[in-house]
Order: sequence, then structure tokens, then C-alpha cells
Amino acid sequence: MALLVQKYGGTSVANAECMRNVAQRIARTRSEGHQVVVVVSAMGDTTDDLIALAKQVNPDPDPREMDMLLATGEQVSIAILTMALHHIGVPAISFTGPQAGIFAESVHLKGRIIDVRPKRIVEALRHGKVVIVAGFQGLDEQEDIVTLGRGGSDMTAVALAWALKADRCQFFKDVRGVFTADPRIVPEARKLDEISYDEMLELASMGAAVLQSRAVEFAKQYGVPLEVLSSFEDEPGTIVREEVKAMEHVVVRGVAADRNQAKITILKVPDRPGIAATIFDAIARANVNVDMIVLNVRSQGQLADLSFTVPEGDLKVALKAVQSVVPEVSSEGVIYDTNIAKVSIVGVGMRSHSGIAARMFSALAKAGIDIHMISTSEIKISVVIPKEKADEAVRVLHREFRLDRPVTTVRTRVVRRRSRS
Amino acid sequence: MALLVQKYGGTSVANAECMRNVAQRIARTRSEGHQVVVVVSAMGDTTDDLIALAKQVNPDPDPREMDMLLATGEQVSIAILTMALHHIGVPAISFTGPQAGIFAESVHLKGRIIDVRPKRIVEALRHGKVVIVAGFQGLDEQEDIVTLGRGGSDMTAVALAWALKADRCQFFKDVRGVFTADPRIVPEARKLDEISYDEMLELASMGAAVLQSRAVEFAKQYGVPLEVLSSFEDEPGTIVREEVKAMEHVVVRGVAADRNQAKITILKVPDRPGIAATIFDAIARANVNVDMIVLNVRSQGQLADLSFTVPEGDLKVALKAVQSVVPEVSSEGVIYDTNIAKVSIVGVGMRSHSGIAARMFSALAKAGIDIHMISTSEIKISVVIPKEKADEAVRVLHREFRLDRPVTTVRTRVVRRRSRS
Repeated sequence: MALLVQKYGGTSVANAECMRNVAQRIARTRSEGHQVVVVVSAMGDTTDDLIALAKQVNPDPDPREMDMLLATGEQVSIAILTMALHHIGVPAISFTGPQAGIFAESVHLKGRIIDVRPKRIVEALRHGKVVIVAGFQGLDEQEDIVTLGRGGSDMTAVALAWALKADRCQFFKDVRGVFTADPRIVPEARKLDEISYDEMLELASMGAAVLQSRAVEFAKQYGVPLEVLSSFEDEPGTIVREEVKAMEHVVVRGVAADRNQAKITILKVPDRPGIAATIFDAIARANVNVDMIVLNVRSQGQLADLSFTVPEGDLKVALKAVQSVVPEVSSEGVIYDTNIAKVSIVGVGMRSHSGIAARMFSALAKAGIDIHMISTSEIKISVVIPKEKADEAVRVLHREFRLDRPVTTVRTRVVRRRSRS
Repeated sequence: MALLVQKYGGTSVANAECMRNVAQRIARTRSEGHQVVVVVSAMGDTTDDLIALAKQVNPDPDPREMDMLLATGEQVSIAILTMALHHIGVPAISFTGPQAGIFAESVHLKGRIIDVRPKRIVEALRHGKVVIVAGFQGLDEQEDIVTLGRGGSDMTAVALAWALKADRCQFFKDVRGVFTADPRIVPEARKLDEISYDEMLELASMGAAVLQSRAVEFAKQYGVPLEVLSSFEDEPGTIVREEVKAMEHVVVRGVAADRNQAKITILKVPDRPGIAATIFDAIARANVNVDMIVLNVRSQGQLADLSFTVPEGDLKVALKAVQSVVPEVSSEGVIYDTNIAKVSIVGVGMRSHSGIAARMFSALAKAGIDIHMISTSEIKISVVIPKEKADEAVRVLHREFRLDRPVTTVRTRVVRRRSRS
């Protein structure tokens, strides 16, 4: 008998029928002898509808009141799912975030969980109940409701799994797991049986967005085993866990493209101490996350262009922030480009394998794909290319690194040798 | 400067535009120098929509989960109204029932308020804020959400007015106040400037339903002054308060009709001790409120018909309950009639005036209206008549008791003398 935390997202609980299906799924897990704690998001478009309603009375609503409003979405979900479970004879009880003992910093709309005291959950489990918890919400020290920001329900699930010492935290999605590439672009893309936390983090940050980064970081820090699996099919998904030696046999785990990036270039930046700090301070104050940064100074003291990418939705805010400091940092001004895509390959095996970058660039060159920017980390190589080439680039790289071949403990050796070439 | 508790019902806050209007209304009250605490219901059809959603997953949802679900309706309202106030520059803060310190018995779907500890409200008022509180909900000793049943928001408002020692508890409705009769039926019906708690109670119970009975009872018990007024017009409404001597000058305060009643008759009931108890025990166990009861035994030990009325919606349940005891209490079975209406006249002055009943019956007789049942209390006389005659009966009685004439302290004497005739 295991203790499982299961998280169902908004599309899995979009309407009454979906709720009934999720209830059946939970009932099956329970009938296998497991204890189950379930975290749910708001149903379908509920959150968007509530935001639209708020904007009708106030274009700039107060964050505390916005949290008061948004928290109702998850509260509806937990009640409905619990009723659906009762209807098929499964004992269950719902808890709001506060009732579940989720405590958060008093930062409205983006609270961070600071403590989990799941007393009521433990008690309900002891009484043989399935426990349904509202994701995305907690209580601050004033006893006000605080929501946990984008992907907050994932955070709730991982934090509960940690606090309850759950055997696994399962994320039910409209995909069957984590793939070597987006199967809509690469038909031969393969579902991965397992992946390391770090690889998952790089995948999430590059737009594959299967799990929320904060949740994966937390899981990595506390060693909470995760699983991504389908809400519609009854099959094992992808396990996300601590890196093991065998994982290094696979050099490239997956390829992903992010089309929602924009590139900003500040022209002719003088090579002076503190210039970069001035620029990225201004952007950070505007609450924009910068992704890739490329600065290439030819020789000390010279002028050079500084480029970086931001989420396309943040472009306007980022440009405004940059323009406010341009007079002091640039001799020629700012340009930007939204017609770009970022394509990345990820794999912990890269750490111990050389030549991967060269192989990536040459495969793209052979396919006639221009590279505008390059950025690398220990386990990821990303390039910025023209947006219309993104799908082709993903297919080219998937083929180049033979990601369609299943990886088993035996076969990895073969793959490894090949990758070294 | 007064402290006012204002309550806005579902139709007053049906959509974003209504919310903006209510915000303006609150802003005006505040600009007159008053402190304001506002209790709101769920927006428009929200509660019905939530119930419909629940029924889609479970025809018989658990009351605790139903409360979890329904409480979200009011929570949406308080957030939206608070945002609307912020937008027009009024400092305001929202509290759920639990945050407002409303504690209730742990009886789901019909909790009763057992304590009010409005610490956060008092503090927010001291900071110059308008306080917006979710009606209809409280916290039980398990820290679960409990809703307060039909008209629960009225209860929240009166209980808060009591706990805060408010100068007045104002109910904003889609009517301008309490009328001598329904103005849609009697065009010359007049708005009353004041009315006693008891009269209001009788009016509420006879279907005029301007305020919830429990709320009025509580207000009477603790002497909380109430006012019923229009959410759309800026005029004084009707004050509901402790009876004063002058009120007795008005013999009949108003006329009302209730078309949603059904009459059940148990035929040939033997006159034996405990028979009535058996019957009404069975009905009470089915949770049906019986209204009028008429039993008329010709002489001791004989058989007689026993009739009573119940809300039309409860007819099926009531009949089932009655039929379960029929074998032991009746020799001929049960019949029922839904084609009835109850018409009542109400007034505290009746206590000290005789002949009112006779005058009522004779006015109805003159208009050719049959009377099927009669029931009287100290300050009310009700008759059951055929449903299609209800409007006419209300008009006849309104005219008979000259309710179109304005009542002032001087004129009441005149009315009084006339009434005695």
C-alpha cells in the first residue's frame, strides 16, 4: 500500500463529465489498495472568467481581493469532485488550502508556501477517506487567502507529497508523459520512462511546460518522486527523479522549441563596469524574467551589441524598462525581433560528452537553418533561429540524436558509443 | 456619524453593472459621514447554477460538500464589490463569513449563528475602511464552512448589526419598502413608514417575504432596528422596530396573499388523544413546515376532518409522511388541493380591536369569495380561498380597511374610530 498524491489540472476537470472520469480514476487507484490525496485546479476556464469579471468593475484590481476571488475556482472543484466520488461509493472529504494546512507568505497573487501542517489530511486518511485539496491557495499570517501564482497547484501537490512523505506525486495531464519532442511536430517522438529533475527543469523552462519549474525545484530539493501521466489512459507515465548513473548514458534526452520569445538587442554598448547590472536591474524591477543573454565584446573597452530574450508577452514592459536606461548604456539605441524561436536539446549526459554542440550546429547548418544566438548550460544547449524554421529544427535534431530509439539499460551503451562520434 | 450595516440581495448584485451601482450607493452613504459594513449575497443565479452543477455529478450531494460549494458564490460577490469600491476611490476590504467572525452550529445547509466575534471588522472600520462581508456563511467548531440556509444573508446582516451595536441594519431590495399590499395587484397600495417586528414576521410568513423570518425574530429579540429600502432609488424605506403605543392606532397594517400553499385533508379522524401528535410528528420528521391547521370536532369522541396547509413544493413529501400514518389515524384516507391561496390581514392593533374578523369575512362574502379555512393569531387573520380569487380578495380587503389612506399620528385616530365600526 502506497500513499499517492495525485494532481489533476484544469483541462482534466473541465466539466461534470471530466469530474466523473477523474473520480473513476481515483476509485481505481484506491481499489488497488493505495491511500490517495488529490490536488485539483479550477474547472476549465473558471479562472479566466473570474479575471474577466473583475476587470469589468476595476481594470486594476487589488491583489488581496483578486486572491479572494480566484480561490473560489478551486473551492468549486474540490466540492464537485468529492460529490462525484461519493456518488460512486468512495468515502472522500474536501479541504480548502487553508484547511489542508497550507501556509504561505503574504504576497498576494504569488505567495510561496512557507509551511504545511496537514493535520486534517492525516486524520481523514486514517479514517479511510480520499482527501481532495484545493490547489493554488494557502493562508497567510493575517488569515487571508493567498494564491500561489502560475502553476501554484503543482506546488501544492509537491509540498503536500513532501509533508505527507508520500511515495509518489502524480501529475495527470492531457499528455501521456514527457516526450523526446512534441509528438505533434515529430511523429516518431518517444515517451520517456524516466528523466532527472534537472532535465525536467530545463524542459519546463524551454516551453515544454509539462510541470511548473518551482514545483520541480522543490521536488528536487526534497527528493519527492514525481510522475507525469495521462488523465485519459491507464498507462505508466514518465517518472521524474534524482539523477542516477545510468541516465548519463543518454546524452540527449529531448528536443523542445519555444515560440513565445522575443529578442531585444541594445546596440553598441560600451564595455564599462556596471553596464550590464544597470540594464538587468531595470528589467528585473519591471518583473520580467530574462532568458538567454549574449554579450560578445571583441576586446576590452570596445563597443558591442548586447542581446537577450524575454517572454513575448513581456516585450512591451521589457522595452520600456530598457529604454529608460538606454541614454546611459547605448550609443545607438534598441531593436527587437519577435520572429524568433528558441530550440534546445537537453540531457544530463552532456556533462560527460563533448562535441554535442558542434553536432547540433552542423545538423542545423546542413538543413539550411540560420542560428542567431547560442546559449549553453551544463545540460542544455539552446539556439535562437527564425520562428518559421522551428518545427524543422526540432525534427532535424530529433533525427540527429536518434531520439526515436527506445533506451534500455542494455541499449544505452550502444547509444553512448554512437553519441561519442 | 452612524454605524450602518447594509445588506444587498442577489438581484441587487446580479452583474458587474449592478455591482458598480451598489458601490456608488455605498460611497454616498460613506460620504454622508457614516461607517458602513456591507453584507452581500451571491450574484444573480450563481447559487442555482452551482446547485445544478452539483446535481450533474451527484443527485444527492453531501451537505458538507454542498456548503463548501455554495459558499463560493458569496465569496465572489465580496471580492467584486470591494474591487468596484476601490475603483471609485473608496477604501474597502472583504471578509468571508469565517474571517468576519461568524460562528455557526455544525448543521450543514442550515447552520444557525451561535457567536459573532467581529474583531477584524472593528479594526478595519477603525482604519476608515468600508467592510464587505460574505453573507450566508459561518465557521463551525471543526473549522468547516457552514451555510445558514434560506435567507441566511439576512441573518448575517442582523447578527453583525447586533454584535457591532450598529445604529441600523438596512436591507436593499427591488422594492421601495414594505407596502400595505403588493402594488402589482393593488395599484393604490401605500408604502409604510414603519412597522413592528411582529407585523413584519406575520407578513414574511404569509409570503410577502420581504425579510427572512429568522432574521426578524433575532432583530426583535435583541432590538436591532431594521430598514427595508430600494437599491435603485435614494429614498427612505420602511423602518421595522419595536412596537410603540401609536402603532396600535392602525388596526390593519397590510394585506398579503400566498399562492404557494397546498391544503391536505385527512378524512374522518377519530377524536382520540395523541392522534394529532402522530400526524404532525410524521410531517415534522419529513422536515415540512405546516402552516394553518384546522380541526373541528363536533362533539367529544366523534370523527372529524383535519385540514392543514403546507408549502406547495413540500406537498409530495408531506403526503408521503401523512400516508404512512393514515392507517392508524383515518377511516377514509387523505385528499389534497393545490388550487388554493392564503390571504391574510396583519396589524398589531387587532389585539385591542374587535370585529375585525367579522368585517373581513363579510367583505369577502359580499365579493362572492368562498372561504375554505380560517386561522387567526393575535395580530393576523388568514383565510384559504380558491387560488383564482386571490388578487380580488387582496383588493377587496385593501379597500375595506382603507389601507390607501396615509397614516399620520393625527389621522390614525380617525382611522381608529372608523375601524371600530
